[in-house]
Amino acid sequence: MTLQQMGEAAVTASRQLAVTGTAAKNTALEAMALALEEQQDAILAANAEDIAAAVAAGIKASLIDRLRLTPARIGGMADGLREVAALPDPIGEILEGSTRPNGLRIQKIRVPMGVIGIIYEARPNVTADAAALCLKSGNACILRGGKEAIRSNMAVTAALAAGLAAAGLPEASVQLIEDTDRETAREMMGLNGYINVLIPRGGAGLIRSVVENATVPVIETGSGVCHIYVDNSADIGMAADITVNAKCSRPSVCNAAETLLVHHGIAPSALPLIAKKLIESKVELRCCERAAAILKDYPIVPAAEEDWATEYGDYIISIKVVDSLDSAVAHINKYGTGHSECIVTESKRAADKFMAAADAAAVYCNASTRYTDGGEFGMGAEIGISTQKMHARGPMGLRELTSVKYLIHGDGQIRV
Amino acid sequence: MTLQQMGEAAVTASRQLAVTGTAAKNTALEAMALALEEQQDAILAANAEDIAAAVAAGIKASLIDRLRLTPARIGGMADGLREVAALPDPIGEILEGSTRPNGLRIQKIRVPMGVIGIIYEARPNVTADAAALCLKSGNACILRGGKEAIRSNMAVTAALAAGLAAAGLPEASVQLIEDTDRETAREMMGLNGYINVLIPRGGAGLIRSVVENATVPVIETGSGVCHIYVDNSADIGMAADITVNAKCSRPSVCNAAETLLVHHGIAPSALPLIAKKLIESKVELRCCERAAAILKDYPIVPAAEEDWATEYGDYIISIKVVDSLDSAVAHINKYGTGHSECIVTESKRAADKFMAAADAAAVYCNASTRYTDGGEFGMGAEIGISTQKMHARGPMGLRELTSVKYLIHGDGQIRV
Repeated sequence: MTLQQMGEAAVTASRQLAVTGTAAKNTALEAMALALEEQQDAILAANAEDIAAAVAAGIKASLIDRLRLTPARIGGMADGLREVAALPDPIGEILEGSTRPNGLRIQKIRVPMGVIGIIYEARPNVTADAAALCLKSGNACILRGGKEAIRSNMAVTAALAAGLAAAGLPEASVQLIEDTDRETAREMMGLNGYINVLIPRGGAGLIRSVVENATVPVIETGSGVCHIYVDNSADIGMAADITVNAKCSRPSVCNAAETLLVHHGIAPSALPLIAKKLIESKVELRCCERAAAILKDYPIVPAAEEDWATEYGDYIISIKVVDSLDSAVAHINKYGTGHSECIVTESKRAADKFMAAADAAAVYCNASTRYTDGGEFGMGAEIGISTQKMHARGPMGLRELTSVKYLIHGDGQIRV
Repeated sequence: MTLQQMGEAAVTASRQLAVTGTAAKNTALEAMALALEEQQDAILAANAEDIAAAVAAGIKASLIDRLRLTPARIGGMADGLREVAALPDPIGEILEGSTRPNGLRIQKIRVPMGVIGIIYEARPNVTADAAALCLKSGNACILRGGKEAIRSNMAVTAALAAGLAAAGLPEASVQLIEDTDRETAREMMGLNGYINVLIPRGGAGLIRSVVENATVPVIETGSGVCHIYVDNSADIGMAADITVNAKCSRPSVCNAAETLLVHHGIAPSALPLIAKKLIESKVELRCCERAAAILKDYPIVPAAEEDWATEYGDYIISIKVVDSLDSAVAHINKYGTGHSECIVTESKRAADKFMAAADAAAVYCNASTRYTDGGEFGMGAEIGISTQKMHARGPMGLRELTSVKYLIHGDGQIRV
């Protein structure tokens, strides 16, 4: 099957999904969950082959762990499908309505996007998660996972297709591209007329490649150089707790903090305490000259220019002393990726100013950046976190996978 | 000034505009309107040079008419700026809010996009219109107009800059790219990190070039192959009136109808009447075989396959007899551009089915497609009509030029 044929099949499926009711979509999600559980042995066998190939190829242990499926992880995927079934259906929501002076009744309603493409890396659970969110929002999807997980993804997709078929929905609602070479990914990025939006999920290299090469509309996700700014008026204990949490609770994720900015007025008292707690959590500190001077009795490393733009994804933090809130904002707007930013302050004026001026999807006052997450925001599930401004910004749940349509009822109106 | 320098200046201006209040933006719009009026002579002189060059280059009369400015047209541009000042400011609107179980207070608010790029063709009034809508929505803009209008656009932009300066807002809020060669347009399409969204306004060739070449996010606009479907149960007189209005009231615009689809059951009675009225309005009829058989006594032309996908923009309409509402929808979803579609019917069931299944930004029952327009929809003004599903669909007013941002207030929350 060529990619264009897959695109045609997806468009056909999407036409049916667009007029499929909530109950039928939920029935299909339940059937897909059941099929995942029933086909657990086949999925585990396929996964074992992927793991063996990855080990033979010398792939590093952390990636192999992300690739590995267990009965518990398959159960988690099935539960995820059932959780999506339990979420409210966004489709058909009436967003606005008015009657114009000429009698035309105009309604703006929420409709599916159509066909969503997703390009992702090694984790096979994304296959089920993404398929569930796309289906619930009335969209067909074309999935392109990483080479290392191809056998697992094929087995998962076969189970999902069996569930769709059992529920009477088109199997082409969820399609996996089985050819994992780069040329095919490029071709997918150019499927204009078939793919309405393409969402890359993965590392910075993957996302850059999609942004540079895609001619279909793209939602850029994920990259997070997030900052904690400790204002002159901050509660130092709170600043330390938030910084340690934002850096250490899960350093590999995009909402983890990478840089600590500290107002020069509070730096002499705040930095030693925060540094002590970070070092206790095994974090390497990369400091500007002023921070290094204050922390001269601590094991620190001098920061280089590239540190300010680096998403470490690891137990490393860069630290800079700034002259003012304005300097902190200027640093954030220069080096940040527009993901999540935080000010720690007791001053309402400082909070308001920072939150208005820091240009990011989520701006916090006195809370950890780690909360930028669809579940934590009450969306139930997310397909990624948008760091662009168009269409969706921040965590993307079901509503972010939809478009709108105007319905206009008249009784013969013509325009003069 | 290089494009990158313009991008940097635009980003700097956008940071200031993002925190500029409604009153200051409205004052600037009024000052810009006044400056256009005061600099009328300079603008007319520049325009006269453009016109002379266009005449010398043998450019056709209809394009020269679109290029021509008069005192009345400059007055219209100034009035347009004042109308935008009178519109509600979308920025700061609180779209959602909730308090999470952990006490975090989350608000989703409307913020500017940042920097909007607009690529357009000959009409110099777009320069003022686009600048006004971008400014009111808190965005800086980088404009790239057509070569033919460059002197006019420079004179208009100089007036707008004078207005901005008089009102104390950065002149770089509105920048015009003065180099009109293709290479510069390409470079603009790749200004990632500076341009948050790029909107092409113009013919199909321009839009295709932007979609294919841009790496910045794009909103596709304008192309309209719109259909009128006359259902079996239609009021034939209403069908004729709507068809003639949708085709003839302004054939060159994107919401004009290009194809008439008629249910076979009503075709023998409906088609002769509709055809007669179209012919009276000097419309050429390009008919499928079945329509041609019914209209054998009328001066018609056989339709070729490419007619179904053609936006004539002229007094030409293609006509096809279809077997059912489903066939009409299938034709529309195959050949339409997702702009505006209409069913004429007295059947509620047919109307509901058509409006759910026809995949377009605006779907009408018993009204002319000519109403797809920001002004007619009550938006006040529009920057274009999106035919894509991402971000905005249909007429784009001030709100469609905005993004969102989450503000999260805590009191020390950290994530476990």
